[in-house]
Amino acid sequence: MSEHGTIVTMNVHELPTPAMVIDADLLQHNLGAMALARPGASLRPHVKAHKCTALAAQQRAHGHASFTCATPREVLGMVAAGLGDDLLLANEVLEPTRLTELAAAQAGARITIAVDSAETVDAAAAAGLREVLVDVNVGLPRCGCRPDDAGRVADLARGRGLTVRGVMGYEGHLMVMDDRDEQRAKVADSVDRLLLAHALTGGDIISAGGTGTYHLHDRVTEVQAGSYALMDTYYARMGTPFEQACFVIGTVVSATPRFAVADVGLKAMGMDHGNPTLETLDGQGADVWFLSDEHITFVPHAGVAAVGDRVRVIPAHIDPTMAMHEVAWLARGHEVIDRWPIDLRGW
Amino acid sequence: MSEHGTIVTMNVHELPTPAMVIDADLLQHNLGAMALARPGASLRPHVKAHKCTALAAQQRAHGHASFTCATPREVLGMVAAGLGDDLLLANEVLEPTRLTELAAAQAGARITIAVDSAETVDAAAAAGLREVLVDVNVGLPRCGCRPDDAGRVADLARGRGLTVRGVMGYEGHLMVMDDRDEQRAKVADSVDRLLLAHALTGGDIISAGGTGTYHLHDRVTEVQAGSYALMDTYYARMGTPFEQACFVIGTVVSATPRFAVADVGLKAMGMDHGNPTLETLDGQGADVWFLSDEHITFVPHAGVAAVGDRVRVIPAHIDPTMAMHEVAWLARGHEVIDRWPIDLRGW
Repeated sequence: MSEHGTIVTMNVHELPTPAMVIDADLLQHNLGAMALARPGASLRPHVKAHKCTALAAQQRAHGHASFTCATPREVLGMVAAGLGDDLLLANEVLEPTRLTELAAAQAGARITIAVDSAETVDAAAAAGLREVLVDVNVGLPRCGCRPDDAGRVADLARGRGLTVRGVMGYEGHLMVMDDRDEQRAKVADSVDRLLLAHALTGGDIISAGGTGTYHLHDRVTEVQAGSYALMDTYYARMGTPFEQACFVIGTVVSATPRFAVADVGLKAMGMDHGNPTLETLDGQGADVWFLSDEHITFVPHAGVAAVGDRVRVIPAHIDPTMAMHEVAWLARGHEVIDRWPIDLRGW
Repeated sequence: MSEHGTIVTMNVHELPTPAMVIDADLLQHNLGAMALARPGASLRPHVKAHKCTALAAQQRAHGHASFTCATPREVLGMVAAGLGDDLLLANEVLEPTRLTELAAAQAGARITIAVDSAETVDAAAAAGLREVLVDVNVGLPRCGCRPDDAGRVADLARGRGLTVRGVMGYEGHLMVMDDRDEQRAKVADSVDRLLLAHALTGGDIISAGGTGTYHLHDRVTEVQAGSYALMDTYYARMGTPFEQACFVIGTVVSATPRFAVADVGLKAMGMDHGNPTLETLDGQGADVWFLSDEHITFVPHAGVAAVGDRVRVIPAHIDPTMAMHEVAWLARGHEVIDRWPIDLRGW
């Protein structure tokens, strides 16, 4: 980083904590590994996992020009960042103001929105959106119409002048399973349902999958994986080729002979997948006792922590963790090489 | 709300969702009930629970001029909002840049910081801070020195030219206990430890407690409660006089005969205390199945939900929930009467 004409380098351990840090080399490894497995348009990276247009630009540099978004603000932010070639809002939206903003953004971007009911079709059409994907329930109890209802939803959309680009169906309940054969069989079932729906809707797109199942999808046109870029301890269980490329750096602010306390709390760490993992800088593990709003209480496996020590906290769920931070620091080794705003937060 | 000279009223059910809504009358009830129990300086409201200077201004209007903060940014935001009469940063901070910013803010505010070690004393003194409180471990395995070590920490602070205002000790592990007699006895033990420490440090302040124990503190000078203003389902278990004064409004975006899905997910809801509670607008409860990033899947107890229905989601933990939102809407009945930025987020 340059300041007043002088080169100023910053060490990650000079960052105020808690600090979200992305390892540039491991990120490139992950993006490269996925681009090899699913090149170009066969991957539609999901930006909800990082909410960062600078990171999305790296995904584009690896050949992926189409993206998946979870919120209207993610779509609008991607358009503003010049990444609007082909954006899918993979969730249903009813709110007229936001839909109208999305429709206005079509002047400089291609925007497709998920629909699964007459109401969501009507809302999209009324706002002036042009293209939809029929969202199909493939087994996860969440959004999506029944597979055998997809043709009706597509007809409703075409009746309102919308272009139906195809179908999507997210098998989120199958992302992390210990029995790989069972996972493979269940994913095949979910794709069967999606293909049944697609036979009823037509369109060029069959979109499914995520970081836990991207390697099981030879019958869809694209996969919506997001977590692969940065990873978390939940997906790490699956033994993917992706490395843990981000962590939150904390400082030990209090220490006793029995335990230590660092300044990475549950306002800096998504907690829905349970406690994060903590490592000291020499790579030693720790028993994490609990997190409070601003603190993590832990016992290092080897030796005692001292006030001022730095630690790395590895999220159990990357998506909500990124949404809690304003900025991520890109680092190579210990050197901070860039500052990436997490600019797609909110709705 | 007024716009272009015309009175424009907005209904809470016109808000884009997810929307954090505060019930103005229930908030006033809560603030009044606490001000009656602990008037003026006997309460030092904790702003970490709401991170909102507009709400802190209401607490000041109820007679409390001193506040507790959890992060440097909370302190600086309170100073900027003109609420800097007496701010306690109740956590240890080592980072020189942030401590220097706090020291600079002393020009227009009174700032006291927690210390529990030689390192935190040194950092505060080196940055130019003037006043400290000795943080004492009263049983919760987190920050704070041993009670019998408090005199040493106070002496270190005085040796560095710092004024020692007294002690604080947060019994966070005793906030919610089903056995009230056991709670009362354990809180008494924790106060014993704090008074032992205070005998060694001196100073005018003995600070402790929270929303779950505010009524058990007749031997301290002030209580640090925060959650009482807005409440959550965790503290509601304790049967306090405080009402649930905030909720996140969601819209049903997808529905089946078996379950429905609203747009309040785990990026809008602190999850460390488990799932939130969901009510339909007619006050019916629901079984909450699970939350995903942007969705809550639920089954209403009475009848079937329809796409477009609004629901209220009540947080299990208010503090991290507020930190996920940019704004809270103040409402009286169904009418939106103000927009409060949640302006103390981050570190």
